[in-house]
Amino acid sequence: MELWSNEDFTAHLRQVGTDQYHDKHPFHELMNHGKLDEDQLRTWCVNRMYYQKNIPVKDAILLSKIPHRHIRQTWIQRILDHDGTPEVPGGIEQWLVMGEAMGLSREKDMIDENLLPGTKYAVDAYLDFVRTKPWFIGIASSLTELFAPKLHKIRLAAFEKHYTWINPSALEYMRIRLKQAPRDCDHGLAVTLEYCNTPELQREAVAAVQFKCNLLWSQLDALYYHFESPTRAVLEK
Amino acid sequence: MELWSNEDFTAHLRQVGTDQYHDKHPFHELMNHGKLDEDQLRTWCVNRMYYQKNIPVKDAILLSKIPHRHIRQTWIQRILDHDGTPEVPGGIEQWLVMGEAMGLSREKDMIDENLLPGTKYAVDAYLDFVRTKPWFIGIASSLTELFAPKLHKIRLAAFEKHYTWINPSALEYMRIRLKQAPRDCDHGLAVTLEYCNTPELQREAVAAVQFKCNLLWSQLDALYYHFESPTRAVLEK
Repeated sequence: MELWSNEDFTAHLRQVGTDQYHDKHPFHELMNHGKLDEDQLRTWCVNRMYYQKNIPVKDAILLSKIPHRHIRQTWIQRILDHDGTPEVPGGIEQWLVMGEAMGLSREKDMIDENLLPGTKYAVDAYLDFVRTKPWFIGIASSLTELFAPKLHKIRLAAFEKHYTWINPSALEYMRIRLKQAPRDCDHGLAVTLEYCNTPELQREAVAAVQFKCNLLWSQLDALYYHFESPTRAVLEK
Repeated sequence: MELWSNEDFTAHLRQVGTDQYHDKHPFHELMNHGKLDEDQLRTWCVNRMYYQKNIPVKDAILLSKIPHRHIRQTWIQRILDHDGTPEVPGGIEQWLVMGEAMGLSREKDMIDENLLPGTKYAVDAYLDFVRTKPWFIGIASSLTELFAPKLHKIRLAAFEKHYTWINPSALEYMRIRLKQAPRDCDHGLAVTLEYCNTPELQREAVAAVQFKCNLLWSQLDALYYHFESPTRAVLEK
């Protein structure tokens, strides 16, 4: 097994996105073409909420495992971005605001009791992954952020075009992630290149991005099958 | 078993400090009376460094377990205080600066290889405690901060009086903790009073402060016996 150059290593990491990022999932394709109805979009928002609210949990687990103070000093910004501060609302609050603009209640609708099991399992698997893997492999798994800005840009345009029943001022989450994700992934990539420094660790880092793509994909599977189950189609005939 | 009022509960928590806080340990009494030699003070600084550097680790573990965003938003400040930011040095850096003013090297002296085993075990037990106990019991264990300002005030005066070979400008850690600890323990106490809300949980919170006092005390035992071992005294006769 050969040690890749930084350039080749980065190319392998990026290739995972080209092949497996959830922007290609049928549910996202339907979403971006304006084909989801209000109920489907709300169900997506409720289920994705579980991922959103666990991002700072995941990052705090990672923070507790990173042995280098200078890396923690940068990583902590992710928690501040998502949790916000008592003064400035963060990503979780922005997601709730988006849900409210879709007619959802934060107390009654956007709660764990309403999750599809597949969504919960996928997110819980992510927490387990960062809890049990070496910290730099956990960081490598964050590199789906390399592919996120393109997704957010397309999604934002799709929402503004097709889902005009949602107040566009409530889409601040997507607008802000367009700025935050590139900054985050620059740091995550630099750490991955530095610490995944053997042929074996390089492959494990690529596998971590694949794992992360799978868990994002899997959440959409849960949604897709919820609405498009062939069994349901047969039964409803 | 009765449910204590907030006032009684607080009194029970405070009583632990009166009885068991490590300001009464013989090693601290020797320190505060100017009876430690340079070597003993340096050994204290090196061993206590392990506690200092694990404070943000402990707080990140806790952060990952706190299910309430508004509590995390305040708790995260502790990590920022100790780790610092790329711009502003935090408590760990200030501790290293104090060690350097004692003639210690951060690379060669203030490292894990130089720890007394008893110091390491005590701190590792703390991480294990917050990892395995309910998050609000972990928070209760932080309430030794109720007793810390008095200790820091006396220690700072003792250093400035007795250990004049240490540049007083390098004692910034103690000066800043005098301000931070009261703010931290106000928050920790409020959370403890709110969430430890059964007779059983109130007793468990008191036990958590006892546990924390024990681990602080135990670190000083390791130092005390290192220098004052009766066996050594007998052997050196």
